[in-house]
Amino acid sequence: MDKLKWIHEMAVDNGSKIILLVLDGLGGLPLEPGGPTELEAARTPHMDSLTGRAALGMSDVVAPGFSPGSGPGHMALFGYDPLEVLIGRGVLEAMGIGFPLTPNDVAIRANFCTVDADGNITDRRAGRIPTEECAKRVEVLRQIQIPGVEIFVEPVKEYRFVLVLRGDGLGANIPDNDPQLTGVPALPIRADDAASEKTAEILRQWWAQANRLLADYPPANSCLLRGISKDPGMPRFPEVFKMRSAAVAVYPMYKGVARLVGMDVIEHHAETPAEEFQVVRQHWDEYDFFFVHIKKTDSYGEDGKFDERVHVIETVDEALPILLDLKPDVLVITGDHSTPAKLKRHSWHPVPVMIAADAARFGKAGKFGETLCASGSLGFIRHVDIIPLALAHAMRLGKYGA
Amino acid sequence: MDKLKWIHEMAVDNGSKIILLVLDGLGGLPLEPGGPTELEAARTPHMDSLTGRAALGMSDVVAPGFSPGSGPGHMALFGYDPLEVLIGRGVLEAMGIGFPLTPNDVAIRANFCTVDADGNITDRRAGRIPTEECAKRVEVLRQIQIPGVEIFVEPVKEYRFVLVLRGDGLGANIPDNDPQLTGVPALPIRADDAASEKTAEILRQWWAQANRLLADYPPANSCLLRGISKDPGMPRFPEVFKMRSAAVAVYPMYKGVARLVGMDVIEHHAETPAEEFQVVRQHWDEYDFFFVHIKKTDSYGEDGKFDERVHVIETVDEALPILLDLKPDVLVITGDHSTPAKLKRHSWHPVPVMIAADAARFGKAGKFGETLCASGSLGFIRHVDIIPLALAHAMRLGKYGA
Repeated sequence: MDKLKWIHEMAVDNGSKIILLVLDGLGGLPLEPGGPTELEAARTPHMDSLTGRAALGMSDVVAPGFSPGSGPGHMALFGYDPLEVLIGRGVLEAMGIGFPLTPNDVAIRANFCTVDADGNITDRRAGRIPTEECAKRVEVLRQIQIPGVEIFVEPVKEYRFVLVLRGDGLGANIPDNDPQLTGVPALPIRADDAASEKTAEILRQWWAQANRLLADYPPANSCLLRGISKDPGMPRFPEVFKMRSAAVAVYPMYKGVARLVGMDVIEHHAETPAEEFQVVRQHWDEYDFFFVHIKKTDSYGEDGKFDERVHVIETVDEALPILLDLKPDVLVITGDHSTPAKLKRHSWHPVPVMIAADAARFGKAGKFGETLCASGSLGFIRHVDIIPLALAHAMRLGKYGA
Repeated sequence: MDKLKWIHEMAVDNGSKIILLVLDGLGGLPLEPGGPTELEAARTPHMDSLTGRAALGMSDVVAPGFSPGSGPGHMALFGYDPLEVLIGRGVLEAMGIGFPLTPNDVAIRANFCTVDADGNITDRRAGRIPTEECAKRVEVLRQIQIPGVEIFVEPVKEYRFVLVLRGDGLGANIPDNDPQLTGVPALPIRADDAASEKTAEILRQWWAQANRLLADYPPANSCLLRGISKDPGMPRFPEVFKMRSAAVAVYPMYKGVARLVGMDVIEHHAETPAEEFQVVRQHWDEYDFFFVHIKKTDSYGEDGKFDERVHVIETVDEALPILLDLKPDVLVITGDHSTPAKLKRHSWHPVPVMIAADAARFGKAGKFGETLCASGSLGFIRHVDIIPLALAHAMRLGKYGA
């Protein structure tokens, strides 16, 4: 955080423009030794035309061996060290459904579960009830009122829902009451610090009432409270880095993370990369910094679909001239982590990074991908360094010390 | 600082010799995509002959994106983490004019300014009075005496001068009284901690007397006090690293930084690189470690003179046999930051590093420059690692742990 303080002090607003284009899960793996990664297999003439005029490198999102979730991945991308600031699961889940969290909110990711007559858990996911059954029970739970706190309950998917408590003096240092086992009852709800006592008492009352109400609705006749957390209160991105900052994303979670750090979230109906880029074009004069998020590179990775990932990357490249025509001073292209189709999951592999700017130390031109980036002029960096480097390349950082 | 403690414990004095040759602002940029940097454009047969027998790498001086001033650049080169120890502007300015600071001194960088009859600042630089006008007023200010403290006033250039207070119990946690605006008076001088109260009181008295004396000398009829600071009190280089250590530099500031960390500063009349190297030769038996500083690579960078930078690098290379003939156990060639002619300023780009030593992991021979170094056996390091690496290559560091 000290480093952020220095970066804030060095930062100047010189009117230059930066685009951070994030292809979710961009980093990949070859299916066979000697083969290309997804990015290397993709036909990307526009990105390739930038490589000779850009600084290239590979970047560890959190630390070597760490496979980041979307929260830490984006915290790091936005310049916050994900080893220092971790967004809780409840907050992430609330952001994932687009719930507008405030700093006074405690967010909880909750699961419907099944308990027997003795209160012992028999199914931690209540038979994976369909989403409409979830919504019906959420409607019931909305009856619960507790003095001194505003309560929101929102359905998510199948057996999952979000609970939000809004009020003053609500700490969130409270462990899950999910025992992660069946055949035993839920754990008692207990605060781990004095600042969370009030929250714990409210949750105990809420949970008791919820159990009474849900008794009539088997198999989802109880629930488990997890990831009890608050906005960690990061310094606000637009103020720290002195840029009017906007997010263009399709999925609610990424809008939520951007909102959490204080970016404006541009509302739009875009779905394809080209449509998202047009949104940037329409708002070009209003902001200095644009975070543009492409989701599908990640989703296809999780599904193990190599060719579909290649295809999404190609659609991004085809649309890239829309951004290039805006002549940003700095264009960063990277991902928030790797999601190799080969592994069907987020992975720890470093992510390729390109910083296209006149002030870049130009390297060798070639096919944009992991192999070229691994010998780039940026070397191996960490994701938390990407924003400082983007600012530097935009001539937005003064000197450190005399 | 913890790491320094370990390095100190591991260090042994085995009589080996290390030269740290610093070409100020060495790192550069190609003017055009695909072109060479300044170092790559320079004809450097002697340096090139070492590359195959040396460990090469690229180094971030402070952190990715940080463009260091000369102070942090040299602190890092000398093995002190510049994110932990920052030298104040007053101390640097005093060192820049060769003022021999002691640990008891508070150094202040002061500007003559112009105030109107109400004491409001009308020109923060007093119309940039010529240096001889500055010297005349400094002579007047030297009359001021305050009991319990020794006071030094020294002219610098145009409207700038240095004020030094010497005495016991003088803290320096006092903000500038420069409001950075015109149309308002100077800010009150106030200590930010109890240890600086005495200094603040002395400065208030000094400043009041200075204003009375300067009233007769418009346009420089007042002054602003900035960068109030002390020697940060680093552990002394010769003791930490167990080497008799000397500095050979032409410019006062670099002599000052070396003196600040406890190196001997060799007095000489050398100006060219060859002459500086001869000074090293003359004192070869007296020291284990030589810091040799070449300034002009930086000055020409700031002026945007690519070809002149190339030429200075070539004169260093031509003279290099003088150092090579001394057969140092380790020769490090690097810079304190990048100053690409293309940008006309200190920049954040990593700096090439060569550690020529028998114990180096040899890499590919070739033209010494950013491209070769980016694929070198050292990888991407930080400047604070250079001294530990030099010691290691000189077999001056034992094992860490059993």
